[in-house]
Amino acid sequence: MAIVLGPNRYGKAETRVVRVTRDGGVHRIKDLNVSVALSGDMDEVHLTGDNAAVLPTDSQKNTVFAFARKYGIGEIEEFGLLLARHFVDSQPTIAHARVEIHEYGWDRLAGPHSFVRDGGEVRTALVHSDGSDGPESVVSGLTDLVVLNATGSEFHGFIQDEYTTLAPTDDRILATAVTAQWRHRGTGSSWGPSYAAVRSCLLDAFAGTHSLSLQQTLFQMGRRVLDERPETCEVRMSMPNKHHFLVDLEPFGMDNDNEVYFAADRPYGLIEGTVLTDDAPPAPAAWN
Amino acid sequence: MAIVLGPNRYGKAETRVVRVTRDGGVHRIKDLNVSVALSGDMDEVHLTGDNAAVLPTDSQKNTVFAFARKYGIGEIEEFGLLLARHFVDSQPTIAHARVEIHEYGWDRLAGPHSFVRDGGEVRTALVHSDGSDGPESVVSGLTDLVVLNATGSEFHGFIQDEYTTLAPTDDRILATAVTAQWRHRGTGSSWGPSYAAVRSCLLDAFAGTHSLSLQQTLFQMGRRVLDERPETCEVRMSMPNKHHFLVDLEPFGMDNDNEVYFAADRPYGLIEGTVLTDDAPPAPAAWN
Amino acid sequence: MAIVLGPNRYGKAETRVVRVTRDGGVHRIKDLNVSVALSGDMDEVHLTGDNAAVLPTDSQKNTVFAFARKYGIGEIEEFGLLLARHFVDSQPTIAHARVEIHEYGWDRLAGPHSFVRDGGEVRTALVHSDGSDGPESVVSGLTDLVVLNATGSEFHGFIQDEYTTLAPTDDRILATAVTAQWRHRGTGSSWGPSYAAVRSCLLDAFAGTHSLSLQQTLFQMGRRVLDERPETCEVRMSMPNKHHFLVDLEPFGMDNDNEVYFAADRPYGLIEGTVLTDDAPPAPAAWN
Amino acid sequence: MAIVLGPNRYGKAETRVVRVTRDGGVHRIKDLNVSVALSGDMDEVHLTGDNAAVLPTDSQKNTVFAFARKYGIGEIEEFGLLLARHFVDSQPTIAHARVEIHEYGWDRLAGPHSFVRDGGEVRTALVHSDGSDGPESVVSGLTDLVVLNATGSEFHGFIQDEYTTLAPTDDRILATAVTAQWRHRGTGSSWGPSYAAVRSCLLDAFAGTHSLSLQQTLFQMGRRVLDERPETCEVRMSMPNKHHFLVDLEPFGMDNDNEVYFAADRPYGLIEGTVLTDDAPPAPAAWN
Repeated sequence: MAIVLGPNRYGKAETRVVRVTRDGGVHRIKDLNVSVALSGDMDEVHLTGDNAAVLPTDSQKNTVFAFARKYGIGEIEEFGLLLARHFVDSQPTIAHARVEIHEYGWDRLAGPHSFVRDGGEVRTALVHSDGSDGPESVVSGLTDLVVLNATGSEFHGFIQDEYTTLAPTDDRILATAVTAQWRHRGTGSSWGPSYAAVRSCLLDAFAGTHSLSLQQTLFQMGRRVLDERPETCEVRMSMPNKHHFLVDLEPFGMDNDNEVYFAADRPYGLIEGTVLTDDAPPAPAAWN
Repeated sequence: MAIVLGPNRYGKAETRVVRVTRDGGVHRIKDLNVSVALSGDMDEVHLTGDNAAVLPTDSQKNTVFAFARKYGIGEIEEFGLLLARHFVDSQPTIAHARVEIHEYGWDRLAGPHSFVRDGGEVRTALVHSDGSDGPESVVSGLTDLVVLNATGSEFHGFIQDEYTTLAPTDDRILATAVTAQWRHRGTGSSWGPSYAAVRSCLLDAFAGTHSLSLQQTLFQMGRRVLDERPETCEVRMSMPNKHHFLVDLEPFGMDNDNEVYFAADRPYGLIEGTVLTDDAPPAPAAWN
Repeated sequence: MAIVLGPNRYGKAETRVVRVTRDGGVHRIKDLNVSVALSGDMDEVHLTGDNAAVLPTDSQKNTVFAFARKYGIGEIEEFGLLLARHFVDSQPTIAHARVEIHEYGWDRLAGPHSFVRDGGEVRTALVHSDGSDGPESVVSGLTDLVVLNATGSEFHGFIQDEYTTLAPTDDRILATAVTAQWRHRGTGSSWGPSYAAVRSCLLDAFAGTHSLSLQQTLFQMGRRVLDERPETCEVRMSMPNKHHFLVDLEPFGMDNDNEVYFAADRPYGLIEGTVLTDDAPPAPAAWN
Repeated sequence: MAIVLGPNRYGKAETRVVRVTRDGGVHRIKDLNVSVALSGDMDEVHLTGDNAAVLPTDSQKNTVFAFARKYGIGEIEEFGLLLARHFVDSQPTIAHARVEIHEYGWDRLAGPHSFVRDGGEVRTALVHSDGSDGPESVVSGLTDLVVLNATGSEFHGFIQDEYTTLAPTDDRILATAVTAQWRHRGTGSSWGPSYAAVRSCLLDAFAGTHSLSLQQTLFQMGRRVLDERPETCEVRMSMPNKHHFLVDLEPFGMDNDNEVYFAADRPYGLIEGTVLTDDAPPAPAAWN
């Protein structure tokens, strides 16, 4: 029996880069959190500590800053592709690069250079490249998009086993914090408009679905994206059921006609699912 | 030498109540985190464990939910006053009540009952009551209002001691997460419009001040509130200096003309200060 | 082009159950965080909202509590297997169950029923079952095991590219927060002693390895486990490089012979890798 | 009506310094989080942005690192005093310095230079100095000391108002996360042994008190410290009641004789109180 090295990767995580661009007197900012993970010819560094094949994570961080200066930061999918290709193309020992970027939004205040942080969802991108000549893939996404329907949600007709005490309901609050990722058919989408459109699809389908289960809502959200955005072929969602329990006010001589709720922390339901077109190409590296 | 009981209080913290109101088919929601702290005749419970003077924190939680049903939730200052007065008025052993409320904002989506969480600042209120017949006070506020000026900030002319290595600068990013509280001259302000106006004053003064120090910006923000909002008499602010360090790109043959920054986590400067009118009445209980 | 449902699962996450056992006057406690994820015949609930195949997540939570009462809580791997098998065996619509458990440690204080939380690493287990008659697999692990070598770590001989500024060093602090998971060859390990022994292997190898790279340390840690614990066949680790930067004290006329460090938050290196025996069976469901 | 500057302070928060000391081949480490807050002649910087009176927070950070090199780090109370005195003594514009230090514990592993983070409570110190010639004060403390009694806790005999539904109990779990601070009679305590002894008093009194209310337990904990440690004169505690609710298993045909609990997150009771000797001197600056 021998002991061997299995799958591995390494890189610099969470480089927080802010890029300012001046357009005349008007400033724009991009605020990113960039994580790089590289893999390739890494047997020696694991087995003997020989670092000859290792590009230091410190150099990866420097590259993020230098590329922000050199190329600017446009859409995060593009910036991720630039970085991922660079690492594989420039280093013979690096065969695969994965770049994950989170973008924080800022809204403009009065005046040409002032901003307030938009605390809503975070836009995400995951890029995988085997170099300019090899396969590459892009996954766009978002996280922490917190939404709530105050009515229009039912839950009944479920299995009753010996541990079931939940009462069926035909009117409840439905709330969740959406994490979604979607695959593009190629790497040439118009990233910015595509992102805005997909986000709208997710919100419209959430608001517009009379829900019999959170799974149904999830499927409708994914379907809406695929129906309306032909550049996408698969959507993956993770949606916690942020439970809002109707408070029993009877002991105080009050009814509670879906008016007063307790917003619970834990435990929570967690619904995860994928919706795809039947002609979607096989899932690429960035998807897994 | 005897051992005695000093200042003390107790209560239920962080009751998460969501109140839905239907106006025809249109729903409105209020989403609060309510913390109650009571004090009074509490020697016995500390010294012997006799609970005869203790209103259980569980009952306090129930009261929050019942009041949400009975009175609805309007402005959080009003809801806090209702609760604080109730505890002191209804319980002979309770002499003082402090109610702190955080309100999370939601924006309306398409459709009459759908919302997306506004992840920006949290609105806050602190209410203190010694009962309907006694003194009471209200402090309004906000927290986590994250703002950034991409230019228009200088820092120079400071003390140079033997441990000073910081270079003076006439152009830097100024970013902070504002926590602010303001005292009202009475308990009869028009809370909602007042809040919106104070928030605008803070943002406008932040954006409009060419800053020589974060302290100067803080003072201008407080002054703007007091100048424009006669219902207020004191503003207290806590503002971390969220450092954005210019990255040295010279080793890579690049200049960096205030374009690429590293957003640091820790340590951070922390600026705290109070601005008041010279005719402000003495600080009431809710202020401390 | 049709739109179809892809991989999906659902369940109750983070049920916090505490089980007290009395052995004469002496109490023991087990403190767990249990997350269940089920999958199977879930097309209808996604497509039409028909819940006939759905065991509510509320019932899953109840099952966790009821099983804690009925069977007690021994080793978390066993408790996870009990739960996972139950869901698949009792529900025709559920084909697969995944149960993840985190266990928080408590140390005994003076007296028979008092404890102080051991704030160190969290013990973890991941169980997958396709029912009593089908394949099942168990993965043990830990997370947040924070360790530091004050010396005995070097880093040099790495690639120098145009973005490299890092100086080589032959003496640095090496610190990390270990997350590790290991596969068992069967589901019949003696879970408790095995856990304690694997933990010791990880700590001993971390402390005993003169490190030329964090990758080398990771491999040695995995190898130690596989060498000494024949019940294991694969170890997967994720180890952030918690950077401690030597502070430049020269401007203050002081040297710094590896004495004063700044502990940085972000960015951080992140090293992930797997070590396995060459006769390890194919990875089972709980591994992925 | 004029607008004036009120109380204010500024400083560098959360400088994370790690100090390594070599004693022959054996290493020791101290791991601190240091926050400095200074006040004094700060009108100009607020009113006009003139920084002539301002010692930059960056210099404060440098001072923390330089002092760690120059003086080493012994007990955190001493290190805090060194820093606080320095700022006031060396800067005419600084009248008051407040230094808060959190210390993270590490346990030794096998080998002379390896450690594992002790994830339990964090030791704290708060120091205030008006300079070597002026008043100064020291407050020691701890936070996040999580303790639990599995029995020996009752709660009954409380007020029953119209919103009370809580059932009295003569056997419940009592769990809390202790934050405590204690005043010393002077600044010459033997800090290390005193800390260890006070911590033991808190734990012993928690474990040894048959509790009729969390307030009673809090008072006994404070009293034990003051009884046994004459160097202390006041103890302040903040103790959340980390509720463990007995799960109702009757629907499943099971009793629950204090065996299975749900550990809730929010809301939680919060008990805060102070215990002092009747000859305690007036509270000094570091206390408030």
